[in-house]
Amino acid sequence: MAETDPAAAPRIVTAAILVIGDEILSGRTKDKNIGYIAEYCTNIGIDIREVRVVPDIEAEIVAAVNALRARYDHVFSTGGIGPTHDDITADSMAAAFGVAIDHDPRAVAILTSHYGEANLNEARLRMARIPAGADLILNAVSKAPGFTLGNVHVMAGVPAIMQAMLDEVAATIPTGTKMLSRTVPANMGEGRIAAQLGAIQKDFPDVAIGSYPKMLDGGFSTDIVLRSRDADRLDEAARAVEAMIASIWAAQG
Amino acid sequence: MAETDPAAAPRIVTAAILVIGDEILSGRTKDKNIGYIAEYCTNIGIDIREVRVVPDIEAEIVAAVNALRARYDHVFSTGGIGPTHDDITADSMAAAFGVAIDHDPRAVAILTSHYGEANLNEARLRMARIPAGADLILNAVSKAPGFTLGNVHVMAGVPAIMQAMLDEVAATIPTGTKMLSRTVPANMGEGRIAAQLGAIQKDFPDVAIGSYPKMLDGGFSTDIVLRSRDADRLDEAARAVEAMIASIWAAQG
Repeated sequence: MAETDPAAAPRIVTAAILVIGDEILSGRTKDKNIGYIAEYCTNIGIDIREVRVVPDIEAEIVAAVNALRARYDHVFSTGGIGPTHDDITADSMAAAFGVAIDHDPRAVAILTSHYGEANLNEARLRMARIPAGADLILNAVSKAPGFTLGNVHVMAGVPAIMQAMLDEVAATIPTGTKMLSRTVPANMGEGRIAAQLGAIQKDFPDVAIGSYPKMLDGGFSTDIVLRSRDADRLDEAARAVEAMIASIWAAQG
Repeated sequence: MAETDPAAAPRIVTAAILVIGDEILSGRTKDKNIGYIAEYCTNIGIDIREVRVVPDIEAEIVAAVNALRARYDHVFSTGGIGPTHDDITADSMAAAFGVAIDHDPRAVAILTSHYGEANLNEARLRMARIPAGADLILNAVSKAPGFTLGNVHVMAGVPAIMQAMLDEVAATIPTGTKMLSRTVPANMGEGRIAAQLGAIQKDFPDVAIGSYPKMLDGGFSTDIVLRSRDADRLDEAARAVEAMIASIWAAQG
């Protein structure tokens, strides 16, 4: 019951996601990484507090990563670490941190072993450019590694590769007290429950209560989502919401 | 041929997307609006330059919208304009612009006509809170309107409603010269084409050339995407890329 002991404050770990790529901003590629990373981090006790998507322009990447890494415990970036001319994330990260960047012997060894010396052309070798002082993030799918520089975890944009890299990163960083959540379905529109839901939120300032409308069979339904790091308070608040919804149905006779 | 007349400079219209909502940051809801708005804007000649996702916290919304509206021609926001206590977007926008917010007679009339006087409770009436000086964005799906305040277009988070609102907004704003794009599939990994692709990019500084790897049948394939507002230059660059890929295949004999 450490969670409910007032002496044991929950440990909060925060993070931001930085998606790098013109193809997301043009709409050509629909991002699948934001939702994956957000759900993954919630499940291991890391709170995603902000997301930014920026183009493949060094000044934009530098400004965004410097804003985010100063503000949150971690930054997870995706995209821009391939072999082609438009992949400028590694150089941009080095510029953001003010460190050198060169072929990293550990990364060169990985790529040599994968492609063979004869096929390791200059373009592929570009994927071994790693900022000074970074740790590699291994890539179980296609070998070319990502890297962690300070509190910034630089991963590939291809979802399958990003997911493998995120597993690697998650194993190395301390996580926080997990945010617990409960969803209470309310089979009615928001407008009928809003007043009483607001009153319950006032009674439970330590539980974040969100109301999410969705279209269902042409009408509206609402999911009430409650979130807290305290399991007992979460239960109490969920019971209050359930009772409120039951009373609205009952009042309809 | 106005596009290729050097005297007729292309008209560039820029925008950012601001997604507001804890549910996206927790991963509970997977955003579907970013990709939709990005593709829609590209198709009508508006360049999305940045995306941010922020939580339902007024100070965060204010900071993000003020940063984005100062920098881009338009900001499209989604989420947080419903009737419940956690919907704080309208008040946050008023705070960001330093204007008053109150029940708007036009919005009240729309909601009264939809719900009927007797069912227009305080919570539903909350959806008529519109910042002073804003124009309404009509909502063909569920009536409660969004609004345009300055260069910020405030829309619902539910995709079907957002999409209807975006149609309304798009009809009212001047758009730019459309960015044209061509995709050339290269049935090989990026590492084999990267060097020559970089050389083509140097020859066509006015055409943005991106290389997007994807996993296909367990191996890698690559889409080369070329983008320009000049149809002739786009054609020339695409032909150069096609010839390059053909020559690599031919070299393999």
